[in-house]
Amino acid sequence: MDSKQIRLTETVKKGGCAAKLPASDLRKALADLKLQKNKNLIVGTDTLDDAALWHLGGDQLLIQTLDFFTPIVDDPEDFGAIAAANAISDVYAMGGKPITALSILAFPTEHLSLDVLGSLMKGAVSKIEESGAVLAGGHTIDDETLKLGFSVSGLVCKNKAWTNAGAKPGDVLILTKGLGTGTITTALKIREAKEKSVIAVIESMKQLNRVPELIAQHSVNAATDITGFGLAGHSMQVALASGVSFEIWADALPEIEGARASIEDEMLNRAHRTNEKYVSETVIYDSVSDTNHWLTLDPQTSGGLLLSVPENDSKKILDQIRPFFKLSTIIGRVIEKGKHPVVFKKTHSF
Amino acid sequence: MDSKQIRLTETVKKGGCAAKLPASDLRKALADLKLQKNKNLIVGTDTLDDAALWHLGGDQLLIQTLDFFTPIVDDPEDFGAIAAANAISDVYAMGGKPITALSILAFPTEHLSLDVLGSLMKGAVSKIEESGAVLAGGHTIDDETLKLGFSVSGLVCKNKAWTNAGAKPGDVLILTKGLGTGTITTALKIREAKEKSVIAVIESMKQLNRVPELIAQHSVNAATDITGFGLAGHSMQVALASGVSFEIWADALPEIEGARASIEDEMLNRAHRTNEKYVSETVIYDSVSDTNHWLTLDPQTSGGLLLSVPENDSKKILDQIRPFFKLSTIIGRVIEKGKHPVVFKKTHSF
Repeated sequence: MDSKQIRLTETVKKGGCAAKLPASDLRKALADLKLQKNKNLIVGTDTLDDAALWHLGGDQLLIQTLDFFTPIVDDPEDFGAIAAANAISDVYAMGGKPITALSILAFPTEHLSLDVLGSLMKGAVSKIEESGAVLAGGHTIDDETLKLGFSVSGLVCKNKAWTNAGAKPGDVLILTKGLGTGTITTALKIREAKEKSVIAVIESMKQLNRVPELIAQHSVNAATDITGFGLAGHSMQVALASGVSFEIWADALPEIEGARASIEDEMLNRAHRTNEKYVSETVIYDSVSDTNHWLTLDPQTSGGLLLSVPENDSKKILDQIRPFFKLSTIIGRVIEKGKHPVVFKKTHSF
Repeated sequence: MDSKQIRLTETVKKGGCAAKLPASDLRKALADLKLQKNKNLIVGTDTLDDAALWHLGGDQLLIQTLDFFTPIVDDPEDFGAIAAANAISDVYAMGGKPITALSILAFPTEHLSLDVLGSLMKGAVSKIEESGAVLAGGHTIDDETLKLGFSVSGLVCKNKAWTNAGAKPGDVLILTKGLGTGTITTALKIREAKEKSVIAVIESMKQLNRVPELIAQHSVNAATDITGFGLAGHSMQVALASGVSFEIWADALPEIEGARASIEDEMLNRAHRTNEKYVSETVIYDSVSDTNHWLTLDPQTSGGLLLSVPENDSKKILDQIRPFFKLSTIIGRVIEKGKHPVVFKKTHSF
């Protein structure tokens, strides 16, 4: 087997975060699970899907997160880099600094050569070390289809941690990357993606969300990274946790080159539908085009950070991150809690 | 689908730690991988298969480990408990105290009802909380076959951490659980296991390796937990890391009820063979029966701890752990480094 000739995306049925179990199913299955409280667990999670914060003592908090998925691109080194960048992203979303990563690898030895395994880890290690962390271990099993991910730990000072619960009315919302990884990788899998879009989506997914290193950490009131539940699902979670409402402007949403065109070509997957269902009772759309509607539901892999920041600081923050995140832009604002946690409008109403 | 009627072991081809990728393959695939050094990473791992130690500052060390596998028993709650006990075990093997667990779950929604998912996590949470840790998050994907595991973190004081590098000539070797999870679960899968053995193996795998809480931590010179590579593979790793040799007495090895009989019925799996290959150049057998030979190679899931302790302390330690670990016993001794890291003899030669 020659690793150069294998298209990883053709070895699996479900790609990337699209293979995530629907949030509603997970919540239902775990409804009866009673978890003990622990005073050191500053941030846990009811949906079992985000980073946790554990108080180590003094003002030091340990950030812990874990993510893994099937290939969404064809090149093993790219996939390794994306899997690592995606897992590390949750540490950045808490305002932290990554320290260690443990690999989670399910590898089909019957279908793929061990060279592919080496390339996957080479790509992953490059991103882990770019983040300043180290690969400290992991576990590998023989399995039918390839899955790769990482359990990542990070550190953050107690008073500098970003959570999803601090967004305040008057804040503006900044998104740091373009949307569209779901639709473009869906097209890629069936060889319908434009080459320019493929290059752009791989570059975007490989980019580390190193925002906490670029800006003053105290200027961010709330943050999350946009992943499987899409912009709509994750912004809903932040708005609910913060007890506010978000107004987001659909026309202002940055896209990875060709994402809207890909949606117009009906390149949607199962997660688009489950995300639509997930937010159906809490997110409303006011005069938003069909294309933009699906863009807000597009499941992201290694998506951007959504930052809620005071309006007065927003220009400075954009100046600091734009050299690295060229598509970063203001996409909406935080308002007093209304009937719906998130309202998507066509354009901004300042 | 009724979760009571589903035999989880029939839903997969390879069970438990037996599905682990052979160590030699992994080493070969990762031979070209160059990892950066980091002064805070006190213990990393070349084979990517053990717990890591990270210096948090002061005298506090963070222990990090990760393990997951396919079902090796039929009941979802039992499997959840075993998967958790197995993952937590590495924290105990470093002399530490578990703090958090993140779940790693691949769930076949097409074949299993969501009730099964709830039962898996119920069993897991019971063990996580029994250990004093909390379930702090995780990730779940839709997949062809069920896999469950945990990324577990723990804490240990710098001068109290157990590693596999401290065994000293003059020490004796204590094994805390019986061997035989590989052969008995192989028989279970094809309905050839005796009921008594099934009950005993499930009880053994569910038991937490809470040894650090029972004994004086400073009295242990080296420790590891016996998992996929069997007693032979893991004792070889400890002997090599410590720069000593081990003499282990095959007749003294404790077994889970019926393990030797199961081996005599030829209930062996692929991991027995790969483990044989893994140790073929470093471990020798002197007048050891075929049955005991395979018992030393039996891949363990949630196996016991192997402790290297000064002979003078060994009686006290056994007195402290035997009320909880009834099969715990002295199985060998540490000698000056010889030609082979591990020599299995028929009986002890004191």
